[in-house]
Amino acid sequence: MKPAAEIGQPLADIDTPSLIVDLDALTRNLKRMADTITDSGTDAKLRGHSKTHKSPIIGRMQMDLGAVGVCCQKVSEAEVMVEGGVDNVLLSNQIAGAAKLDRLADLNRRAYVPFCVDHLSGIAQASEAAVRAGVTMNALVEIDVGAGRCGCAPGAAAVELAKAIDDTDGLRFGGIQAYHGSAQHIRAYNERQAATEGAVTMARNTVALLSEAGFRCDIVGGAGTGTFRTEAASGVYNELQAGSYVFMDADYARNGGEDGGAFDIFEHALFVLATVMSQPSPDRAVVDAGHKTCAIDSGPPTAFEMPGAEVTRISDEHSVIELGNVNDRPQWGDKILLVPGHIDPTVNLHDTYICVSGLHTPDARVADIWPVAARGCVF
Amino acid sequence: MKPAAEIGQPLADIDTPSLIVDLDALTRNLKRMADTITDSGTDAKLRGHSKTHKSPIIGRMQMDLGAVGVCCQKVSEAEVMVEGGVDNVLLSNQIAGAAKLDRLADLNRRAYVPFCVDHLSGIAQASEAAVRAGVTMNALVEIDVGAGRCGCAPGAAAVELAKAIDDTDGLRFGGIQAYHGSAQHIRAYNERQAATEGAVTMARNTVALLSEAGFRCDIVGGAGTGTFRTEAASGVYNELQAGSYVFMDADYARNGGEDGGAFDIFEHALFVLATVMSQPSPDRAVVDAGHKTCAIDSGPPTAFEMPGAEVTRISDEHSVIELGNVNDRPQWGDKILLVPGHIDPTVNLHDTYICVSGLHTPDARVADIWPVAARGCVF
Repeated sequence: MKPAAEIGQPLADIDTPSLIVDLDALTRNLKRMADTITDSGTDAKLRGHSKTHKSPIIGRMQMDLGAVGVCCQKVSEAEVMVEGGVDNVLLSNQIAGAAKLDRLADLNRRAYVPFCVDHLSGIAQASEAAVRAGVTMNALVEIDVGAGRCGCAPGAAAVELAKAIDDTDGLRFGGIQAYHGSAQHIRAYNERQAATEGAVTMARNTVALLSEAGFRCDIVGGAGTGTFRTEAASGVYNELQAGSYVFMDADYARNGGEDGGAFDIFEHALFVLATVMSQPSPDRAVVDAGHKTCAIDSGPPTAFEMPGAEVTRISDEHSVIELGNVNDRPQWGDKILLVPGHIDPTVNLHDTYICVSGLHTPDARVADIWPVAARGCVF
Repeated sequence: MKPAAEIGQPLADIDTPSLIVDLDALTRNLKRMADTITDSGTDAKLRGHSKTHKSPIIGRMQMDLGAVGVCCQKVSEAEVMVEGGVDNVLLSNQIAGAAKLDRLADLNRRAYVPFCVDHLSGIAQASEAAVRAGVTMNALVEIDVGAGRCGCAPGAAAVELAKAIDDTDGLRFGGIQAYHGSAQHIRAYNERQAATEGAVTMARNTVALLSEAGFRCDIVGGAGTGTFRTEAASGVYNELQAGSYVFMDADYARNGGEDGGAFDIFEHALFVLATVMSQPSPDRAVVDAGHKTCAIDSGPPTAFEMPGAEVTRISDEHSVIELGNVNDRPQWGDKILLVPGHIDPTVNLHDTYICVSGLHTPDARVADIWPVAARGCVF
């Protein structure tokens, strides 16, 4: 399929619905994260989560600013990252199934690609693949620090799994994964920090028990865009897995900030450009972007800098925007910018990023077009 | 990306998460729709909506059983259908923007591809494209028969737009689009039918007014999987745009049937195959399919034929299934079939259909692999 635009075109000529990167804001977000970590004085490094951007181009930009590598959730994503020149990829997820584990083992011939386990069966199956391939793979024990999804219990259970890894051919204990996913979107800063401090305590105790048992953690990984400063300051976490900060989204923008104000350390750098394709009444616009284009798991998109506008319905191919309270209302054929509720699954719906320079100026122009290289990489 | 399976492999060897077609059930669903329309004695024909399946292979299967063509929502979908041998495609949607309209005009050189309008600006912009390309395009007037999204008011407003089309170079009046989308999922049959009868009345009155004004409708289109028998029996609609019936989904299965029982005329023929990748406790399984694989706009997926199981959380890459009330619980590494809440956006997340014969038998095997050819065709 032909991309929605060509390099050099003005914003007005970009076809819709399309995924627009504000290249200036992206650059500032990347820099701001790198500076924030440096300024905090922590020894922890960024390992940005590429499940957000699915692009080795952005992964390399993160590494150029000091990140040790990237995270992936899927073996097929890791393949795309390694192929794209990122040679340090943590699979922050369990890998089940011989086909995937054989691919993971093969990848470990070419790059450093540790992965997570939380079950003896997972260790046994991964060992078989490593032995088949003649490689040694680094396995991290994932502990559940409050998210209630994957991971064994912190403490003794993690030590048991570390011993099992150590006793198993083809595997080496590589550290722990301690990500508190559900803490990221707790709105009030104090509550969010309290949840994160709980995760830090569990990680600290587990690292201490592992140390007593003779296990050193290469990686103590976790943290996200909503909480990374707390993990960075902990002295326990040495890798920070924030992902969404590169682009921000409407849901993260609903978080409260440290000072009681807005969570505005990062800027919106990703949008869905949409066209008003139907206008059944003056106070309502229907645009050509629905949830096949803009993920809704964290709520509908918002209309960027259009006070009073509200996306009240979103279906496969359409969003209905109520304009009753909007002063300068868009008309049939006009293009508007939507801020997705959740970046990661929105990016996964698109084949290309249309990168625009000077986005919010009259000179907005397509500066680059990047593939969403790991789009659809679910295996 | 390598597909999740090869032809001939047993079900157990298919990688996950993957999109599985029950080829036997699909064949029965296609036949059942064709027979139901034939048996009803209506003159209306099926024009299956390809926004569900995004596959010219399935489109041609529908036409082989009597469908006049397919519907699409997007010009890029129509391009894929025409390229795949389907030469009669209704764009049941408004098309805004010169780039898209030029592509639509080009498509009309090679196939019959009518489209919808509901605004004078849309007519003017389409006319310019038709004139540039030197073609005549058929424009249907969409009327709002209760969905409250796109479409002009039924009656006089539609006649005004028909006149505008008639007065415009490069366009020809092609009929009306009168789809009541929000009626499809009204649970109680009687209420669903009442809403549909309302749409039928509006369509009938509009057709009569158009006729008085000298306009004949080639197409009076509408109807979906939930309501098509009512439109078929109306004597007004001549094309039925059902889409979901080919695969069914968990949300349509929550509809009530005509006899007060279940809405079970069609079978579940599409699944997401997932693997238990984490099992933090015996009564909980975490599978490797989240909402990047299985759309959740109409609720989470259900675990197929696993009474007592409940998908309680779904995130980007994981679903958490509570198994407390399940007798025969899946274990780490086991594969299970999920029934998506909503087929259309789920299909759009995948690159390939893994078509399995004998799916629910011990001999389940990959019989074919089809591309989701119009995946991501949002333009």
